[in-house]
Amino acid sequence: MANEGAANTEHINGDSGKAVSLASFKAQLVLPESKAIEAVKFYKAAFGAEELVRVNHPKRKADQDVPLIIFAELKISNTSFLVSDQTDDFVTALDGGGCGIVFRLETEDVAGLVAKAVEAGAVADGEITEMDDAYGGGLLGKLKDPFGVLWFVASATKKSCEAES
Amino acid sequence: MANEGAANTEHINGDSGKAVSLASFKAQLVLPESKAIEAVKFYKAAFGAEELVRVNHPKRKADQDVPLIIFAELKISNTSFLVSDQTDDFVTALDGGGCGIVFRLETEDVAGLVAKAVEAGAVADGEITEMDDAYGGGLLGKLKDPFGVLWFVASATKKSCEAES
Repeated sequence: MANEGAANTEHINGDSGKAVSLASFKAQLVLPESKAIEAVKFYKAAFGAEELVRVNHPKRKADQDVPLIIFAELKISNTSFLVSDQTDDFVTALDGGGCGIVFRLETEDVAGLVAKAVEAGAVADGEITEMDDAYGGGLLGKLKDPFGVLWFVASATKKSCEAES
Repeated sequence: MANEGAANTEHINGDSGKAVSLASFKAQLVLPESKAIEAVKFYKAAFGAEELVRVNHPKRKADQDVPLIIFAELKISNTSFLVSDQTDDFVTALDGGGCGIVFRLETEDVAGLVAKAVEAGAVADGEITEMDDAYGGGLLGKLKDPFGVLWFVASATKKSCEAES
């Protein structure tokens, strides 16, 4: 609600009285057929997107012409979004009627935020899993909300790599 | 590209040398069956979303139990997104294989940005249209990018209404 001076938008104070801190919220585009590199180029040309960070998948770099992108963070205006190649980690989520765009939350308390969302009516998509080191480690939970939107709830990471042009 | 101190991320400097200024970039969720109100409640409960602005459709308020929401702007962490009821304006875009999530850009130069994106490989979805006053007026262009994402390119507006809880 607007105009509540005392509201702290960084914390969730739900029915259970438990506050879950959120580090970030971003849209994430997950593309099949290793199209992420092409998409990054397109968003730069079409909308002047600025590439802040790119993380390639180290394991697949050697045997593929195009390295798989774990994520590239692109900034348009003052808002950033992520572009990722679809890998095994994303297949489950997208098979469930997804469209390639998911909403991603990062938090220090993945289990707490997933529990809170399920309490509010979201459906957990599998268990919370440990992410491979290639993905920065940490935990990942997947949710489908009552409106068909897929949410990734991931550990807040301090990942930072140079962008490649 | 990161680390370019002189880069102005608010402007697009494309091949044509023409700069198009962007006022904002946000994800927009377009929901069928007048579910936007329910969705706003859910995102507050599940993820602690803060409602910054809500604009109801004035024309339909009288003859419906639930007013149609033109858009509600919800903020999670430091990023906001829009939740809208699907109306005639959105049907075309969503019929084209859309999934309910579109990316919305606001700019002073709708025609310039649409032209730039089409030059880069996007496909215009119909002509640029004048929006009804209920939507704040201005222009709206629709694009489908090569990766299946739908983009709304709208006039930058100074719309501000009180949020309703």
